[in-house]
Amino acid sequence: MPVRFLGRFWTSLSKRTRQLIRKPDGAGAIKLAVSLFAQHGESAAAARSDALMKLYRVMNAEARHGFHLYLAGNFLPEAHRLKAAAEAYLRRPSPMAAAELSAASVPARQDLLKRMNIAPGATGLLIAMREALLKALPHAAELKPLEQDLNHLLGAWFNRGFLELRKLDWNSPAALLEKLIAYEAVHEMRGWDDLRRRLAPDRRCFAFFHPALPDEPLIFVEIALCQGMADAISPLLAASIAPGDAHEADTAVFYSISNCQPGLRGIAFGNLFITQVVEELRAEFPQLKCFVTLSPVPGFRRWLETRLASGDSDLLRESERNVFGEPALKNFAGALSSNDWRTKDPEPAVLKPFLLRACARYLTETNAGQGPDDSVARFHLRNGARLERINWCANTSPRGIAESYGLMANYLYDSGQIDANCEKFAVHGTVAHSFSIGVLASEGSKASDKRALIRAAE
Amino acid sequence: MPVRFLGRFWTSLSKRTRQLIRKPDGAGAIKLAVSLFAQHGESAAAARSDALMKLYRVMNAEARHGFHLYLAGNFLPEAHRLKAAAEAYLRRPSPMAAAELSAASVPARQDLLKRMNIAPGATGLLIAMREALLKALPHAAELKPLEQDLNHLLGAWFNRGFLELRKLDWNSPAALLEKLIAYEAVHEMRGWDDLRRRLAPDRRCFAFFHPALPDEPLIFVEIALCQGMADAISPLLAASIAPGDAHEADTAVFYSISNCQPGLRGIAFGNLFITQVVEELRAEFPQLKCFVTLSPVPGFRRWLETRLASGDSDLLRESERNVFGEPALKNFAGALSSNDWRTKDPEPAVLKPFLLRACARYLTETNAGQGPDDSVARFHLRNGARLERINWCANTSPRGIAESYGLMANYLYDSGQIDANCEKFAVHGTVAHSFSIGVLASEGSKASDKRALIRAAE
Amino acid sequence: MPVRFLGRFWTSLSKRTRQLIRKPDGAGAIKLAVSLFAQHGESAAAARSDALMKLYRVMNAEARHGFHLYLAGNFLPEAHRLKAAAEAYLRRPSPMAAAELSAASVPARQDLLKRMNIAPGATGLLIAMREALLKALPHAAELKPLEQDLNHLLGAWFNRGFLELRKLDWNSPAALLEKLIAYEAVHEMRGWDDLRRRLAPDRRCFAFFHPALPDEPLIFVEIALCQGMADAISPLLAASIAPGDAHEADTAVFYSISNCQPGLRGIAFGNLFITQVVEELRAEFPQLKCFVTLSPVPGFRRWLETRLASGDSDLLRESERNVFGEPALKNFAGALSSNDWRTKDPEPAVLKPFLLRACARYLTETNAGQGPDDSVARFHLRNGARLERINWCANTSPRGIAESYGLMANYLYDSGQIDANCEKFAVHGTVAHSFSIGVLASEGSKASDKRALIRAAE
Amino acid sequence: MPVRFLGRFWTSLSKRTRQLIRKPDGAGAIKLAVSLFAQHGESAAAARSDALMKLYRVMNAEARHGFHLYLAGNFLPEAHRLKAAAEAYLRRPSPMAAAELSAASVPARQDLLKRMNIAPGATGLLIAMREALLKALPHAAELKPLEQDLNHLLGAWFNRGFLELRKLDWNSPAALLEKLIAYEAVHEMRGWDDLRRRLAPDRRCFAFFHPALPDEPLIFVEIALCQGMADAISPLLAASIAPGDAHEADTAVFYSISNCQPGLRGIAFGNLFITQVVEELRAEFPQLKCFVTLSPVPGFRRWLETRLASGDSDLLRESERNVFGEPALKNFAGALSSNDWRTKDPEPAVLKPFLLRACARYLTETNAGQGPDDSVARFHLRNGARLERINWCANTSPRGIAESYGLMANYLYDSGQIDANCEKFAVHGTVAHSFSIGVLASEGSKASDKRALIRAAE
Repeated sequence: MPVRFLGRFWTSLSKRTRQLIRKPDGAGAIKLAVSLFAQHGESAAAARSDALMKLYRVMNAEARHGFHLYLAGNFLPEAHRLKAAAEAYLRRPSPMAAAELSAASVPARQDLLKRMNIAPGATGLLIAMREALLKALPHAAELKPLEQDLNHLLGAWFNRGFLELRKLDWNSPAALLEKLIAYEAVHEMRGWDDLRRRLAPDRRCFAFFHPALPDEPLIFVEIALCQGMADAISPLLAASIAPGDAHEADTAVFYSISNCQPGLRGIAFGNLFITQVVEELRAEFPQLKCFVTLSPVPGFRRWLETRLASGDSDLLRESERNVFGEPALKNFAGALSSNDWRTKDPEPAVLKPFLLRACARYLTETNAGQGPDDSVARFHLRNGARLERINWCANTSPRGIAESYGLMANYLYDSGQIDANCEKFAVHGTVAHSFSIGVLASEGSKASDKRALIRAAE
Repeated sequence: MPVRFLGRFWTSLSKRTRQLIRKPDGAGAIKLAVSLFAQHGESAAAARSDALMKLYRVMNAEARHGFHLYLAGNFLPEAHRLKAAAEAYLRRPSPMAAAELSAASVPARQDLLKRMNIAPGATGLLIAMREALLKALPHAAELKPLEQDLNHLLGAWFNRGFLELRKLDWNSPAALLEKLIAYEAVHEMRGWDDLRRRLAPDRRCFAFFHPALPDEPLIFVEIALCQGMADAISPLLAASIAPGDAHEADTAVFYSISNCQPGLRGIAFGNLFITQVVEELRAEFPQLKCFVTLSPVPGFRRWLETRLASGDSDLLRESERNVFGEPALKNFAGALSSNDWRTKDPEPAVLKPFLLRACARYLTETNAGQGPDDSVARFHLRNGARLERINWCANTSPRGIAESYGLMANYLYDSGQIDANCEKFAVHGTVAHSFSIGVLASEGSKASDKRALIRAAE
Repeated sequence: MPVRFLGRFWTSLSKRTRQLIRKPDGAGAIKLAVSLFAQHGESAAAARSDALMKLYRVMNAEARHGFHLYLAGNFLPEAHRLKAAAEAYLRRPSPMAAAELSAASVPARQDLLKRMNIAPGATGLLIAMREALLKALPHAAELKPLEQDLNHLLGAWFNRGFLELRKLDWNSPAALLEKLIAYEAVHEMRGWDDLRRRLAPDRRCFAFFHPALPDEPLIFVEIALCQGMADAISPLLAASIAPGDAHEADTAVFYSISNCQPGLRGIAFGNLFITQVVEELRAEFPQLKCFVTLSPVPGFRRWLETRLASGDSDLLRESERNVFGEPALKNFAGALSSNDWRTKDPEPAVLKPFLLRACARYLTETNAGQGPDDSVARFHLRNGARLERINWCANTSPRGIAESYGLMANYLYDSGQIDANCEKFAVHGTVAHSFSIGVLASEGSKASDKRALIRAAE
Repeated sequence: MPVRFLGRFWTSLSKRTRQLIRKPDGAGAIKLAVSLFAQHGESAAAARSDALMKLYRVMNAEARHGFHLYLAGNFLPEAHRLKAAAEAYLRRPSPMAAAELSAASVPARQDLLKRMNIAPGATGLLIAMREALLKALPHAAELKPLEQDLNHLLGAWFNRGFLELRKLDWNSPAALLEKLIAYEAVHEMRGWDDLRRRLAPDRRCFAFFHPALPDEPLIFVEIALCQGMADAISPLLAASIAPGDAHEADTAVFYSISNCQPGLRGIAFGNLFITQVVEELRAEFPQLKCFVTLSPVPGFRRWLETRLASGDSDLLRESERNVFGEPALKNFAGALSSNDWRTKDPEPAVLKPFLLRACARYLTETNAGQGPDDSVARFHLRNGARLERINWCANTSPRGIAESYGLMANYLYDSGQIDANCEKFAVHGTVAHSFSIGVLASEGSKASDKRALIRAAE
């Protein structure tokens, strides 16, 4: 049976330290940090750490900023040793010299942050600290050293070997489920009824957890078990549609993936997360044939508007030029500029092939080895998925229209191809895609491109 | 409900990789490590990691050594960036330049080790790797860079904030209790009956665990709840003595503390461990007044023999010189040189005051700010304990006689003094001790020393 | 680790049995019951039991009724043995003869019900069966033998020694919390926000569970931790009032107690439940001084209307007669007959003393040793509580007005008096009450009564 | 989270009751029982129950016997009601009259026992009480009413629907595993090493538990996973033989089944237990083809000695008569009478066919519909197993030789035949057996028997 981490250390604090805790400003935090760093005894350090984190919790943004600046500018590596190590390395850059330089350059700040992490609940606060730093960095570059150390430590602490995949369902604690409602970033949940539908017997939800944050999901995915690849989001979300029989499903549709901790940005566990979830689903439902997403295309509209504005005539087929008259692109741009284009001329039937083609083009661009610009596409392609299909009228919510004219994409996770796709995307920015996506993207483009696209799909 | 970490990735490995795994030598491990490091896809990396750790598990010591050497000499930081950062820092050593140098000098090896840690069970193997490195370092300094990186990562992973204190008792899993028998380093357990006595209702046992090693204690302590400070070990271990009533105990005697993972040497959690155990005991038994150890003095005999050989006449009182005749010290040394001195002339009654005094002297030496040489004493003094009493005939087992002529020490953990003791010991090597220890240590020594010793005890 | 109870027995069933299961009518159930009873092999019996309970689950009320009638009229005790035992007992009624008669009269039906209970989930269905029987009994006395056997078996199975008290809070599974919303019988919850308020840090909720129904609360209580005895319900339910500090509370107010399983009616665990909850609260909050309910008085209005109609002039004081003129009672009855009496003449200030007095009279009636008629009062008095106070305008919801003109009562659980109160109520119907209740009830009544009432309060 | 059952009721007990508890004799227990029965308040009853069970725990056998006698002779059903019900039933024995008679004859004692069961730990004591009663009954028939009530209640409480099958392994709590060592009734374990071998990866152990006795196994089975039906016990028990690979096993050998609670005798869960264990094994190891026991034949030697003494010449073949000379049987008996017959004349080769045949005869006797006399055989046959094989030199331990000349039997659990075997055995005492057993048993017997035996095996 586990026992709680820290006892009541309050009584071991001096009167002065207690006063600092009660005065929630940066100066107090700085003094506590200095004192924490100077402690030789570990239990004294534990008490200081607890006090500092309690204080940090109640500090306002301004006080925190001051504290961050102090941390970033102090607790440096020992200068003599570092200078000597740098000189030695420059003289003769051997593995040993590099190692000594690496050791000598670790700032005292890292030790301080590790000591801060002793306090109960500290890990969550350090994640919040990094979130604030990431926001502030563009305007305060001098915070970089602190952000960098946090990045380094969080990267070690949140090593994928320590993460635990858990299934969440209607038997999970209410306090935890409540967080799903709050963190859902893709398709908003309006309350417990929405949530309940998403945890029905034909659904699954998995999340990654870290032992130091047992009640905080790091990333979670919502999955629908159904027949065939879903081509629209609203039937998946509608509470009115009765749950199907999960044991007759042949397809698992990953329709929402949310990162919960902005302070862990850049500490990737996406691919492994999806791979493990696929393993879990396969173990429970051996009959599943297809693991596919139903994903937004958040950058499409912005990209298309830029292209239309810059007059990229390659996007249009001859016939379309005729429909719109010259200047065709400009007319297209006009037609699409309002959100009620679906009810106006030219009718959607004319726009549909154009938008599907443009979207295929958008999502398959290699951009000189960088891959497409779309953040969701990049996430799945980096993980080894294949762009399988683009769906018309798939998300007709205001946000869906505003982002991508209602289009959504299916990315397919085919375990036999994941590693190869991954590798090609990482090295060349090559977008794995289905044959039909290849055909779609090459329509109207030059013949050579067309052949290339089709080849990539084979 | 947690689900298992990694699925079966075997099928995602190439035939070649599988052959390497089956051929347990360093070359195979090196190729897997290079391949693991080069992977872009995380699930491919997870598969490589799993394969590498499985291979490592079956490699013999020689093959492992070759592999370690390779790791230590390769996976260096990027040379251009590091050179530039070193030069920039030497030019102008600002916090930003130091941070860049720190970032630039992190070797690729750390990333590789983090990737190795993805595999299930990898953390335990990396600890074993460091254990082997610590043994090999005296003869193979070129392993230092690898050991240093492991030390850095293990230090982050085993941050005290992630450790969990658990009570172990007769209801704990047999597979776990079995490890206590194996790891007990102070007073050997000869089987389940011995163990059972140590988990009886008047005993307590606590251990630290890490979430990545849920079945492996990191450090554990055995405690007897009794009346008054125990002055000998055998009554505590004898299975024949019926358990007392823990609720009538006024003293908790910590009679055995064992570190279980040599590969975590230098990653300290001793003090915090004892502090937390004291908190737990206090919560369960509010009537406890005294928290004290009954500890071996493993270096005493070796130290005394050296002193006797070098003729440190300060150790003897006038009266003792008379008993032994000249050269008194030499005669003393002769008397103590065999293990049956207790049954010979001069009789123990004569030796007792001499040995107690010498031991007090041994344990209170400041050694120019370094504190006494004894490893157990250093552990408790560093944690803030006070040397309270030295006990005659406290451990008459062969090992007890061989190490310390059967003497044992009580170190007292007095929560009101821990921080101060800690600080003084860390800064000046000052040994906190009771008044009677002060008197004992000063007997026969010069007056000035005597006063100093007594003062320190006040 | 527990493993699931029953494997897949479907394959061990004959084709005929499977057909019966698919045809949800009483005839099928009867055949299965006969077959279940006749089985010699226990695993065959387990399969039949599973089949029967699956069938029962989908039978409609009519089919169930037919099945119940069959069970009640068959599966009798063995006639020869019973006849012989009855005659032997009548001849010579010794303990041995009584024991044989008891054994001989146990109907085969009990064995059948025990066999039915082997199936997973059967216990819940047998509780539902008793619920249906209790409803049907007034019109179908021939069901009595079946109801009696269920009562006997459920009484044994739900022995208080097997019940487990669990604390429910916001970390409990959502699927369980959802049931609190459904089962709340006293003050309706309109959804998750209401529920959340009732599980806030200044609230507690406890329930009894049985191991065979781990997800089904049997009875639960909602408690507010506050300062002083609460005198109205709406401040306790309002989501808008911020939670107080439970550690500063001196009073625990039990404001809602709901029985969840009508099929367990008469199988009492009320008193023990409240006693254990008091123990739990006291362990967590040693500073609590007072454990009191805030309870409805559901039968008061109906009782008062009857008294007013029958002209019980004892209820009025002289002064009140003057206010209302003759016939005073009739005028009173008129005044109270509509639900908007609070805004009409005679003004509430006149009605208040009258209603409080009448209510005190209602709740303290001994009724020839039976105690007051009010079901809630009977529950608490039987459990040893004391009627402490009657509160004006305490529940002004339509239901509160309709049942008791908005009055609510506080019953006090004073552990030093519980046993004595219990005993007196059980034997004489004596209602333990506070001094002020005694004064209130005796106003206007004959002097002798008055003295008696005051005496009982001492 | 479950919370402990009973609070501290000691303080609610009168001084007199506390004295009774401290004086551990039957008179005190009787007074407490009377007081417990008379309580109206449930929390008062809980306190009395606790006190009574604490007292019972420390009473010696004599005091307990007196207490049992009192309980058996008192707490009778209400005489008037019972007399009326008996007369009514004899007049007109309807279902309703039988039900009333059943209700009227339930002794107050059952209510008392249910109240006793409220105390924590009481269920275990009531089981112990029944164990004592079962031992005492042959000499004290007047205890029957009490034993009968306990049987009735325990039968309800230990309804198979409430039992939980748990897998026990080396990760189970030591305190639980220790009980396996103590309870093992078939092949003694000499300590933790023996136990560990029986929990190795190629072994399984399952037990039934009841929620009220979470730390007490009711029955447990030890299973070896191996290739082919085991024909001797010692290779299964030898700690020196390395564990095999469970995933390559085709046979599960149930080599030890122990009932742990003599006080639950006659409350059968054997068959269901084995059926569920088979289900569990099949789920974990789908490749298992055969589920078979390796069982002792505890009654064989006693049976054979009787037969030999009575001169049952049917057991010998013509050839055997010649070997031994006349009187052949008597010579046989002489040869087998010492325990070193294996090393003497006539040599074992001559005795082997005789003993195997006699054992087959012993185990296939129908005994006028009662089945064979052997308790182990009866257990497995009643459960639906088939006698598959008799093994020579299968258990050469002193006990094995003493009971059955070292013979052991394999009983086969073939799920397709269990129900039919069960039924035939229950109704006709027919022993299901393999063809070869049929041949063996019919050797030397009359032709008609031979044919019958072979037919039964088909």
